[in-house]
Amino acid sequence: MPDASEAVPARVQVTEVGLRDGLQNEPVLLPTEDKARLARALVAAGVRQFELTSFVSPRAVPALADAAELVSALRQIPDLHLSALVPNLRGAERALAAGVDAVVLFVSASATHNAKNVNCSIDDSLARFEQISRRLEGSGIEVRGAIATAFGCPFEGEVDVRAVGRIARHFADLGASRLSLGDTTGMATPPLVTERVRHLREVTPSLPPTLHFHNTRGIGLANVMQGLWLGVDRYESSIGGLGGCPFAPGASGNIASEDMVYLLDEMGIETGIDLEGMIEAGRLAARLMGRELPAQVTKAGPRLALGDCADVPTARG
Amino acid sequence: MPDASEAVPARVQVTEVGLRDGLQNEPVLLPTEDKARLARALVAAGVRQFELTSFVSPRAVPALADAAELVSALRQIPDLHLSALVPNLRGAERALAAGVDAVVLFVSASATHNAKNVNCSIDDSLARFEQISRRLEGSGIEVRGAIATAFGCPFEGEVDVRAVGRIARHFADLGASRLSLGDTTGMATPPLVTERVRHLREVTPSLPPTLHFHNTRGIGLANVMQGLWLGVDRYESSIGGLGGCPFAPGASGNIASEDMVYLLDEMGIETGIDLEGMIEAGRLAARLMGRELPAQVTKAGPRLALGDCADVPTARG
Repeated sequence: MPDASEAVPARVQVTEVGLRDGLQNEPVLLPTEDKARLARALVAAGVRQFELTSFVSPRAVPALADAAELVSALRQIPDLHLSALVPNLRGAERALAAGVDAVVLFVSASATHNAKNVNCSIDDSLARFEQISRRLEGSGIEVRGAIATAFGCPFEGEVDVRAVGRIARHFADLGASRLSLGDTTGMATPPLVTERVRHLREVTPSLPPTLHFHNTRGIGLANVMQGLWLGVDRYESSIGGLGGCPFAPGASGNIASEDMVYLLDEMGIETGIDLEGMIEAGRLAARLMGRELPAQVTKAGPRLALGDCADVPTARG
Repeated sequence: MPDASEAVPARVQVTEVGLRDGLQNEPVLLPTEDKARLARALVAAGVRQFELTSFVSPRAVPALADAAELVSALRQIPDLHLSALVPNLRGAERALAAGVDAVVLFVSASATHNAKNVNCSIDDSLARFEQISRRLEGSGIEVRGAIATAFGCPFEGEVDVRAVGRIARHFADLGASRLSLGDTTGMATPPLVTERVRHLREVTPSLPPTLHFHNTRGIGLANVMQGLWLGVDRYESSIGGLGGCPFAPGASGNIASEDMVYLLDEMGIETGIDLEGMIEAGRLAARLMGRELPAQVTKAGPRLALGDCADVPTARG
């Protein structure tokens, strides 16, 4: 049960991660111009925060090989906040040159996932972060932290909340401006959300968590509900539910931005984002990918968009 | 915010409606033997409450033309509770002869939907219920009530909570044992769940509501979360998310039973239903329908079912 200090927030900040976390798991390689077009549709709907790309090896993630070009294509739009993941110093140099607002330093809370993802130990990742952070000092670029497998690991199973807390403290010491808890393979549940959010509020009170859920097991928005009850006011989501899960054929990836915006709207929570505009962006995303995407409100429309219902079936209860 | 009397329940009763609400909206006509096989898979998983079919005109709903045969095929399994929708006295006679445990009397909270669905006014529907209820007196058959379009109408838009309350009072006066609020086209939202549940607790305190959500706009389980916070302990769902929405091509229908059971399990809420068994039933449902169904946990598996992850992608954050 939330206590009085854990009230549903009046306003929530939504960060769009579809162009990064969504596309990196999709088999289709979108041309930069199509990515920019999708981003502009999202901007038209009111999205301002983008986790846009990753400055990783183009061999490792070919879908994001155009990181610098994409930043450049969107950099002229005013009032956007563009962040990008960087795995190492070289990635940070590229991000700096490209002109991002923030770099996102990422590490997994489970050793096996971190080894498979970035080929080093958790402590080696944390040491890299210090190196990157020193390099960026004085550059004006914001440093953000992201913890993958923060709610469970597909290799190790449960992830101890203290492993998440330990990494969070490192990010706080580094002066990170934000900390995202990544539900990498959709293992978050409402009780785990409560446990992790409350633990982080104790160990890193200056670094309020951002929640990044996947809908792999269908309960992504139930986890958002739990986050809202706890007063968490920052969420990351992916237009259309772009993404998929590399471990489960047919399974959903990130929660769909438009479904989350619909939920927040209906709860009277301000996002600055227009649902109709998001539905248009979601439809564009489906056309560009050439497939139906998981987002639901994009197919059904807003609840009061009354359609042509002349062929209503009968006696259905 | 829930007050102290609205605590998350320790135990929830799940009623499986896939064979009724699910199949009536599916284009595939399942043979009775396949329906019975799916029901037996659900029984093996621990499901005991089935809304199994409707005794409606076979011309109006061909998918449910085998209502009596299906009841008969499952009647020999011990400890099952089998209910069926009946639109009129003739349907009630057929249900009685078939040997159901309960009939479900249904009416829409919006006049237009009721007229299109059962071709009469709401008051005419309520008058029919009295006739049916008198006919069933002394038969030992339980009478249940269901209110369609209880959270909104695809023709009229918003549905006043007092329209729902008025019908609920009729069901209470009739001696109905249960009242289900149907989210017929997926228009329920967390604030509407709160408003309706609290209103019904005032006007019909003896008739605790059952919640029946559709996932048409992706927030079905967010609405379940809201119901749980309010202390509601009865939910209706459909295996695999069978159903679809007659108004929105590609849109989801009922919330998926296995995704809901997964959520309840992870929240420590007892259902008496085994998730692995539900996933097996969900896979059977997909095979029988010959298509992928919306349920997510069926594709991804339980969160700690660690798979073969040798091909983990790299540097993905």
